[in-house]
Amino acid sequence: MACTQYAYVKSFERDDRLLPNTWLVVRLDGQAFHQFSKAHQFAKPNDAAALDLMNACARSILQSYQDIVLAYGESDEMSFLLPPHAQIFRRREAKLVSTIASQFAAQYTFLWPQYMPNTTLQSPPVFDARAVVYPTVQNVRDYFAWRQADCHINNLYNTTFWTMVLDPKHPERTTREVEAILKDTNAAGKNEILFTQYDINYAHLPAMFRKGSTLFRTKTAVTETSRTTGEPVVRQRDVIQTTYDDLIGDAFWDAHPAILTVQAPRAAKLAKNGSDGQGMVHTKRAVIAHHAPDDQEELLQPDTS
Amino acid sequence: MACTQYAYVKSFERDDRLLPNTWLVVRLDGQAFHQFSKAHQFAKPNDAAALDLMNACARSILQSYQDIVLAYGESDEMSFLLPPHAQIFRRREAKLVSTIASQFAAQYTFLWPQYMPNTTLQSPPVFDARAVVYPTVQNVRDYFAWRQADCHINNLYNTTFWTMVLDPKHPERTTREVEAILKDTNAAGKNEILFTQYDINYAHLPAMFRKGSTLFRTKTAVTETSRTTGEPVVRQRDVIQTTYDDLIGDAFWDAHPAILTVQAPRAAKLAKNGSDGQGMVHTKRAVIAHHAPDDQEELLQPDTS
Amino acid sequence: MACTQYAYVKSFERDDRLLPNTWLVVRLDGQAFHQFSKAHQFAKPNDAAALDLMNACARSILQSYQDIVLAYGESDEMSFLLPPHAQIFRRREAKLVSTIASQFAAQYTFLWPQYMPNTTLQSPPVFDARAVVYPTVQNVRDYFAWRQADCHINNLYNTTFWTMVLDPKHPERTTREVEAILKDTNAAGKNEILFTQYDINYAHLPAMFRKGSTLFRTKTAVTETSRTTGEPVVRQRDVIQTTYDDLIGDAFWDAHPAILTVQAPRAAKLAKNGSDGQGMVHTKRAVIAHHAPDDQEELLQPDTS
Amino acid sequence: MACTQYAYVKSFERDDRLLPNTWLVVRLDGQAFHQFSKAHQFAKPNDAAALDLMNACARSILQSYQDIVLAYGESDEMSFLLPPHAQIFRRREAKLVSTIASQFAAQYTFLWPQYMPNTTLQSPPVFDARAVVYPTVQNVRDYFAWRQADCHINNLYNTTFWTMVLDPKHPERTTREVEAILKDTNAAGKNEILFTQYDINYAHLPAMFRKGSTLFRTKTAVTETSRTTGEPVVRQRDVIQTTYDDLIGDAFWDAHPAILTVQAPRAAKLAKNGSDGQGMVHTKRAVIAHHAPDDQEELLQPDTS
Repeated sequence: MACTQYAYVKSFERDDRLLPNTWLVVRLDGQAFHQFSKAHQFAKPNDAAALDLMNACARSILQSYQDIVLAYGESDEMSFLLPPHAQIFRRREAKLVSTIASQFAAQYTFLWPQYMPNTTLQSPPVFDARAVVYPTVQNVRDYFAWRQADCHINNLYNTTFWTMVLDPKHPERTTREVEAILKDTNAAGKNEILFTQYDINYAHLPAMFRKGSTLFRTKTAVTETSRTTGEPVVRQRDVIQTTYDDLIGDAFWDAHPAILTVQAPRAAKLAKNGSDGQGMVHTKRAVIAHHAPDDQEELLQPDTS
Repeated sequence: MACTQYAYVKSFERDDRLLPNTWLVVRLDGQAFHQFSKAHQFAKPNDAAALDLMNACARSILQSYQDIVLAYGESDEMSFLLPPHAQIFRRREAKLVSTIASQFAAQYTFLWPQYMPNTTLQSPPVFDARAVVYPTVQNVRDYFAWRQADCHINNLYNTTFWTMVLDPKHPERTTREVEAILKDTNAAGKNEILFTQYDINYAHLPAMFRKGSTLFRTKTAVTETSRTTGEPVVRQRDVIQTTYDDLIGDAFWDAHPAILTVQAPRAAKLAKNGSDGQGMVHTKRAVIAHHAPDDQEELLQPDTS
Repeated sequence: MACTQYAYVKSFERDDRLLPNTWLVVRLDGQAFHQFSKAHQFAKPNDAAALDLMNACARSILQSYQDIVLAYGESDEMSFLLPPHAQIFRRREAKLVSTIASQFAAQYTFLWPQYMPNTTLQSPPVFDARAVVYPTVQNVRDYFAWRQADCHINNLYNTTFWTMVLDPKHPERTTREVEAILKDTNAAGKNEILFTQYDINYAHLPAMFRKGSTLFRTKTAVTETSRTTGEPVVRQRDVIQTTYDDLIGDAFWDAHPAILTVQAPRAAKLAKNGSDGQGMVHTKRAVIAHHAPDDQEELLQPDTS
Repeated sequence: MACTQYAYVKSFERDDRLLPNTWLVVRLDGQAFHQFSKAHQFAKPNDAAALDLMNACARSILQSYQDIVLAYGESDEMSFLLPPHAQIFRRREAKLVSTIASQFAAQYTFLWPQYMPNTTLQSPPVFDARAVVYPTVQNVRDYFAWRQADCHINNLYNTTFWTMVLDPKHPERTTREVEAILKDTNAAGKNEILFTQYDINYAHLPAMFRKGSTLFRTKTAVTETSRTTGEPVVRQRDVIQTTYDDLIGDAFWDAHPAILTVQAPRAAKLAKNGSDGQGMVHTKRAVIAHHAPDDQEELLQPDTS
């Protein structure tokens, strides 16, 4: 083959599989979205349609990859969670981040006319992505708490900022002046400004803006038509839900325990003794045939020496 | 800040900067494009409009990133070359592959109606990407030779295959039968079949199909209107060219020496003595202020001991 | 400084810190120890003094690094376990493996005369080392089960092999013949040969040979002389124990629960409010009780929207 | 096999092969050598015997590994250079750094009595090691210039410092006072102090102290006894030389061009047609003359389209 003498260049590729038996988070972030949102006249501080479009793209990713169990989005970023047993793309990092970023950006472009019917897309958006490995459920919980706290802080700031900038009573006020006013306020101070000066109760603003969006699968009763009888039947199906819940406390996670439950990989389900009831994953174990473990039995016998 | 107690999760991110002073290749590959091309009824064995669309996406990448000096595409894949002095995204691997894959797929979706006016895009395409590090010019040359040899082999096979499958004289012939016939032929054998049975001189088929597409910048004389005088003036500008040249021999590279020339990084241009005339890159050196190298001078004096 | 213009070469060093909040195993392996043991006439199939020397080297490593909680050795290999909170060498991989391999080999050379008084060391031994990252306690348990099962299999084979090779009733028997006989036997078969032909009950052989050696710290009552009163006092001290216990079942781990207990990192204990003003650090914040700062409280309030 | 169910833990090991076709530097550094040198009463500012011992250890490494072409040492550190074609340990990083650090420290312990006959080794030394990848010859040259400049700066400082501290005319002078005096001197100032106050011409001090030590192989005429005739014959053999040359200028490298010459890997020399039937391997195919296989010839034919 003509390729043979050049094929050695393939040996420069690195094996970039992420550590087995760990949680993976893939976070997408819009590039130059300040400019993008300005060019397409997004509403300030939040454009509900643009956020809905982000969520629709996330939904398409969840639909494509069963291995992704949750998405959390705020502003122009979206995080995807994969459990320790996920084997998607053999956990290769470059493949994972490039595929998800690629599909997300293409879907954003594809779905734009549906969510932004009155605005022409001038140029397609670009998202970068990174993968981060987390060993424990607590790390994962803290990750989403980190992103949601970030959402809260940014949104409280932006809401106060834009309310003051767009204040019709102060048409002369510059963005720089508002920045100066807000620089030394804490959360309580911003709530106070909104409430006393603008009669806005921050806690009553849409949860999507304050909490960000969370997408995940739930078993839901769905009425379908039986193929055999033609009668309507109710079946339990995985349905992707979008909520704007608090992710920092326990309530959300307690209500949806399946999200943080680690399962044995599919192959393991077939193996008789592949389950260990300890919430851990038999990453490779599961796929190995258990040939007559006679030596093993012996090792487990009481030691009589 | 509310984020503080969770921000530790950021410490799990890995520094994934690619080795300084090396050539980088980012290769994109379409996912499930067999299915995608079938669903959108691409012409067989080559769809010129679909290849033009690929090239248009590559062009948008070259336009966005001055650090990319060449793109080479065949079928549903596209490779981008970055020189040792490229500092794009601080050479972070995940950022690099996700951004390029994202922009490419979004552009593909965005430009589809322009290149495929008679076919509705059913769902957007997905591309994965990987980055490979090459230390030498010879490795880079061999990389592109590898991809072009791959293009040649696949295209010769596909051209022969589809010519035989679509042969109106043999409407009964199955794809499996054609595969069986071609299994043991070499390149000469396939050329022979095309020439004697179908009167096709393979070498006369479009170069885009046989050689793939190469995009790169050339200094080109461009007539512009002078801002000061309003008169037409001829200026040398970087223009992105698309060719279908042979990349295995020396001719292309000799004709465009700038592509494989390593430049000192921008910062180095400012430093007086930052250039060494040896075709190497002062990756960090360039950015360090040269404080009075008095100790150094001494070291370089003849040793009198 | 004379170094300045060259110091850029330091930027080619890679950040090789291992994933935070994971178990680390460093496994050392003797190089060419078949030859080394032959040159120094080690007893076959096991040389107790040579194994004691290995254990003495492991003990010196445990004494040097508080972050290492367990060592397990068999034949010419030794594994060290570090818990998720270990910050030794900032978890840099090259530093970790090179330091431990270096100290181990140097100690082996240094302690040789004490353990092998009648044999001159001809040339010092060499050990390589690798670091492996394990996310869960189950993975760690399985790691040590893997090594101990390996010890068992090798030792049962070697014991049978050397007993047959050195059998005075069959002086003509070659090692090749013995290999051929043993090739198709399982564990029961080898036990049977030892018992019926040589009157050896394998289970009664020294546990160090059959199980390998385990070193770890235990709180032990130690009688010391009080500095103030000069009287003997009994104090709880960390003492390094060497045992030859089974590591596959639960008994050992249940008896020594401290080994697999994850602690908060030292830095966190010192910091009053968990903040360090330096960025990352709190690798294991997850296991620390969270004092809620002000923005946080707000987030945790019931959502009234 | 008993191991089977646990062997999955091996899948957590990472492929850590360093980039093919690049220069590798492995740098060893003594741990806590300030303390070690004090405990063993090393002469100040330089202990010639201790440096000779370092060089003897480096020599043992060069003798063991043909793939190492140069060692450079100063103080308690030693750097080893491996060329792009080096395949030692399949270029696995952990194996490389741990093996070299291990052998070096064990040799140091082993050879101690020979180099330090009057001092008892109290505890063995420890060295850590790191591997750094350099793509170009210029980077390699700059690396050794960096280390030698470091040697020069440190040695000039230490020589001046200890000369002043040990000055019998100023027995009352503390190390702190000398530090204060030297803080603001440059190289010329330190030379001046040595020359005017102590009549020491720094350039006349031993080159080993000022330049560090360089070890490498040279083809040297060696007189041997012919095995066939029993007569003395002169043969060209690789002999390891130790020099204290300047590595910053060109003279050393021009005089020993073999050190920085890249060779085709051994495997390639053996293979007739460059094919090995095993997949990757031909890391350095690039530097081998290409025999054109049949498809290839066709590609190289003039394009007639």
